[in-house]
Amino acid sequence: MRLAELSRQSGVSTATIKYYLREGLLPPGRQINATTAEYDEEHLRRLRLVRAMIQVGGVPVAKVREVLGHVDDDSLGRAIRLGAAMWALPQVPEPDEDDGYVQAAHEEVAALLDRLGWQNAALLSTISPAYRSLVVAVAAFRRLGYDWGAELLEPYAELMYRTAVLDLDNLETQPSEAERIEFAVLGAILNEPVLQALHRLAQEEESTRRYGFE
Amino acid sequence: MRLAELSRQSGVSTATIKYYLREGLLPPGRQINATTAEYDEEHLRRLRLVRAMIQVGGVPVAKVREVLGHVDDDSLGRAIRLGAAMWALPQVPEPDEDDGYVQAAHEEVAALLDRLGWQNAALLSTISPAYRSLVVAVAAFRRLGYDWGAELLEPYAELMYRTAVLDLDNLETQPSEAERIEFAVLGAILNEPVLQALHRLAQEEESTRRYGFE
Repeated sequence: MRLAELSRQSGVSTATIKYYLREGLLPPGRQINATTAEYDEEHLRRLRLVRAMIQVGGVPVAKVREVLGHVDDDSLGRAIRLGAAMWALPQVPEPDEDDGYVQAAHEEVAALLDRLGWQNAALLSTISPAYRSLVVAVAAFRRLGYDWGAELLEPYAELMYRTAVLDLDNLETQPSEAERIEFAVLGAILNEPVLQALHRLAQEEESTRRYGFE
Repeated sequence: MRLAELSRQSGVSTATIKYYLREGLLPPGRQINATTAEYDEEHLRRLRLVRAMIQVGGVPVAKVREVLGHVDDDSLGRAIRLGAAMWALPQVPEPDEDDGYVQAAHEEVAALLDRLGWQNAALLSTISPAYRSLVVAVAAFRRLGYDWGAELLEPYAELMYRTAVLDLDNLETQPSEAERIEFAVLGAILNEPVLQALHRLAQEEESTRRYGFE
């Protein structure tokens, strides 16, 4: 398809598509003469991914380029490509390792992973932003004076594990490896707001089932 | 306890406590003479809640006052107080009801609630920010050109329902009605980052179980 058709099918203006091409967020089309290039389904798919990251995820252009670099680097293994793409997305700041609450939270989270049998996640703990986020959140509870220990988190972790199994089952329905990797990036951006909304809706449903509408 | 002791136990400076008292975020202590007031456990608990909202949740002071107004209004029923407090927290903007994607998303979400049997959530749909968030998210998928329907969300919704049951079971362990309502507000602020971190950790665990570390 030509640029105009790519714009029509994607709903992205030709000016924006040209900008993405200049910024290297979209691979160049196949040049068919000096002024015309031909684009295909892969360009359309990549364009949707770029829009999802920029418009829905609020990811800066430079970061989008970095994520796509991981997505496209097929010298990396699958788990690394899945992870590297998601790890390039916005994350919580580094916790202050000198802080006593942070140190205690590290111990609690390590014990939680141990009880859950999440050995791989434990192995990744020094480099994983998700692990760091959990430590920061547990430390925040403690710093505020709440003594809910990480053992309260165990049933939640089991439900989130089942959620992750669904995520990967869905990912595996994607027809190609490139699409599976892209799906993982999309999931990180689009699915989290969906899960949060479903969780809040479920709270409303359950709360009114228990207590009525009064 | 005196102001200095309240400050010591909460880790909040006396200047900040005085600011919260002036702003009406903390009820006044019991005046024991012209210059000294006495504070109790309830002040300490409220102080922790205010800090969680402001420091962790990033909730503006005026909004904190509004949320606490709902929390403290025992003329309201329980489900309303639980909901009203959470509904006062930051939410997604209103969707554009003239947008075709939004209209289609409304229909998809209504059909999803119907299949799930979430009749109460459906009754609340016109006023619920959670419902609105889900409509916005589903419309975003469609607008980006992804045709994953809301039926894909059904197993996720079932897991989020089990998560909400855990939330309410935990809430019911709180010793007083005031503490249960406060716990609901805290949950909305503190639990969501925890669930997100657990979900991402579970994805790492499951992804490396399936594909190894390569």
